[in-house]
Amino acid sequence: MAFTLHATDPYSKARAGELTTAHGTIQTPIFMPVGTAGSVKGVHQYELKNDIKAQIILGNTYHLYLRPGLDIIRAAGGLHQFNGWDKPILTDSGGYQVYSLTEVRKIKEEGVTFRSHIDGSKHLFTPENVMDTQRVIGADIIMAFDECTPYPCDYRYASRSLDMTHRWLKRCCDRFDTTDPLYGYHQSLFPIVQGSVYKDLREKSAEIIASFEREGNAIGGLSVGEPAEEMYAMTEIVTNILPADKPRYLMGVGTPINILENIALGIDMFDCVMPTRNARNGMLFTRKGIINIKNKKWAADFSPIDPDSNLATDQQYTKAYLRHLIHSKELLGAQIATLHNLHFYLWLVGEARTKIREGTFYEWKNKMVKQLGERL
Amino acid sequence: MAFTLHATDPYSKARAGELTTAHGTIQTPIFMPVGTAGSVKGVHQYELKNDIKAQIILGNTYHLYLRPGLDIIRAAGGLHQFNGWDKPILTDSGGYQVYSLTEVRKIKEEGVTFRSHIDGSKHLFTPENVMDTQRVIGADIIMAFDECTPYPCDYRYASRSLDMTHRWLKRCCDRFDTTDPLYGYHQSLFPIVQGSVYKDLREKSAEIIASFEREGNAIGGLSVGEPAEEMYAMTEIVTNILPADKPRYLMGVGTPINILENIALGIDMFDCVMPTRNARNGMLFTRKGIINIKNKKWAADFSPIDPDSNLATDQQYTKAYLRHLIHSKELLGAQIATLHNLHFYLWLVGEARTKIREGTFYEWKNKMVKQLGERL
Ligand SMILES: [Zn+2]
Ligand SMILES: [Zn+2]
Repeated sequence: MAFTLHATDPYSKARAGELTTAHGTIQTPIFMPVGTAGSVKGVHQYELKNDIKAQIILGNTYHLYLRPGLDIIRAAGGLHQFNGWDKPILTDSGGYQVYSLTEVRKIKEEGVTFRSHIDGSKHLFTPENVMDTQRVIGADIIMAFDECTPYPCDYRYASRSLDMTHRWLKRCCDRFDTTDPLYGYHQSLFPIVQGSVYKDLREKSAEIIASFEREGNAIGGLSVGEPAEEMYAMTEIVTNILPADKPRYLMGVGTPINILENIALGIDMFDCVMPTRNARNGMLFTRKGIINIKNKKWAADFSPIDPDSNLATDQQYTKAYLRHLIHSKELLGAQIATLHNLHFYLWLVGEARTKIREGTFYEWKNKMVKQLGERL
Repeated sequence: MAFTLHATDPYSKARAGELTTAHGTIQTPIFMPVGTAGSVKGVHQYELKNDIKAQIILGNTYHLYLRPGLDIIRAAGGLHQFNGWDKPILTDSGGYQVYSLTEVRKIKEEGVTFRSHIDGSKHLFTPENVMDTQRVIGADIIMAFDECTPYPCDYRYASRSLDMTHRWLKRCCDRFDTTDPLYGYHQSLFPIVQGSVYKDLREKSAEIIASFEREGNAIGGLSVGEPAEEMYAMTEIVTNILPADKPRYLMGVGTPINILENIALGIDMFDCVMPTRNARNGMLFTRKGIINIKNKKWAADFSPIDPDSNLATDQQYTKAYLRHLIHSKELLGAQIATLHNLHFYLWLVGEARTKIREGTFYEWKNKMVKQLGERL
């Protein structure tokens, strides 16, 4: 994996770069649509590529491990072969889902024991077997197994958890570095900075993470309920420490505003379920603000879904029709809204990149942040 | 509306024709995908046109009347404008849904009183207001308001109901013929033959229906649970009486085998929720037989969904991937399976048409009927 910086913004820490993986090149800053179980909900692979212009998608190790399971994915020759997406893929470590989706879980030094949310069956995730699992899935970028602390989290717990996350990281690296990729192409392991909302813990974690000198670095445990200002404060502390010549991935973030603010703080990669999940519920993100398409006010609005967008479906369908579809729980409503939101997120990061290269990012970002939060 | 016969099969009553409407021409025999609430579930309008090659779709008056409601559809300028489908549309009369979906209903000479399955609100459908409603929806072909008798149905009830259906038809025609289309293009009203599975009632009904001399004729009340042989027997009686120079529409039918057998009996138009509804549940129709994609046997089958199909998604995705998606209730599973089934149904009627024109329909039909029912 190679990372090249093309431009840095003179008025902020924003950067435009290029990340090269075995499955192609990614222009950063980038947003990664979430393809939970090997599919971005409601979107065909060719729509991701041709309409949304996604450059990399995310898969959830937890979901893929449970269904279809590792035997099937290995037999297919990895996730790319299984789902037919031939561009880059990143997988998380499964930790986040284990902590958020499963009720019965036990966190020990060895790893985490949990019960499947599907059938209640018992499983153990360890730093070692999660590396093996991600070898089987075959993502281009894989994530270290960590503990993602909830918010709020008391200092004592956050500190102890952080130490364990660092010990787990050592075990992840040892396993990863002594195993080979299964499908003949290179995979990269990104470690994750934790530390809740505590400045000193985040600093300590960022220094330890940086010392591992992996090909990229991630920040986890944010966007879990803390105020946006605390999120930005933590990002800033961490990006001051993480090396500038490697990509920085902020996990699970966020709203369009969060994305622009974090780009300004030096983040290169993002993922979030918000554009897809909220789409299914009728929330549309646009450059002029947020539309709740379920609102009565759109019922007889026969203007295109988004007149500012160059996505065909944004022009072909009207707000009134989309409102009707979402209201009636028609599948097509979820499809149209998801296409819209993902296309918008990819437009937003692409536009940020252009502005960074032009040197006009900071002003543009401040203007956009005012608009993006409006309720239309 | 114009109907031209291009060919008739020498060994059966099958016909190939062309039906011209204000929104374009339809090659018959044809299958009409069901777009219940103004959307064929899981399918974009451009996919219907470019991938499935649908020539006409169906809308359900009952659903559209309740949601989005007539005010919205009228304000949009009719259903074509509302959903962006610019080819022909047919709407049913709403009767079938009133009888099957609503629990509280009262059938009187005046019409049917029922409660909405959505919010329990009370409504009255009469032959007159159903014509007005279908004027507002603006379909190219609209259906008479009838009583669709259940199966089984005792003779006495079927006979009385039939007489009322005929009286209702007179009222439908009177209303339709004294009102104008709302959007400047011609609409056609098709009456419906009823009579349950009683030969004499079907004959009587077919004669009365034919005597109205409308632009096309339909057969209702079949495929409601009766054995296929009874369905075919009723179709045959009716198509012997209905005029040959007008299109014949068999409502709500059916399996691929039902469709071929009824084409052989002189039917030109079909609709059914089976390809779409069953797709969402993992049942795929192919020219070699039926696939239940949920079966374990497909779990590691990495062959294309349908190697015989020229639909891109049938080639791009594997059986194992589709099985995983359906199993995991992923939206994309419903999307892929629906595209497949509708494409197959349209291929099947298109192929039937080609064979009729070549004079080889009967032999081909008998060969296909043997394959289509196989369980793969
Ligand atoms: Zn998120
Ligand atoms: Zn049917």
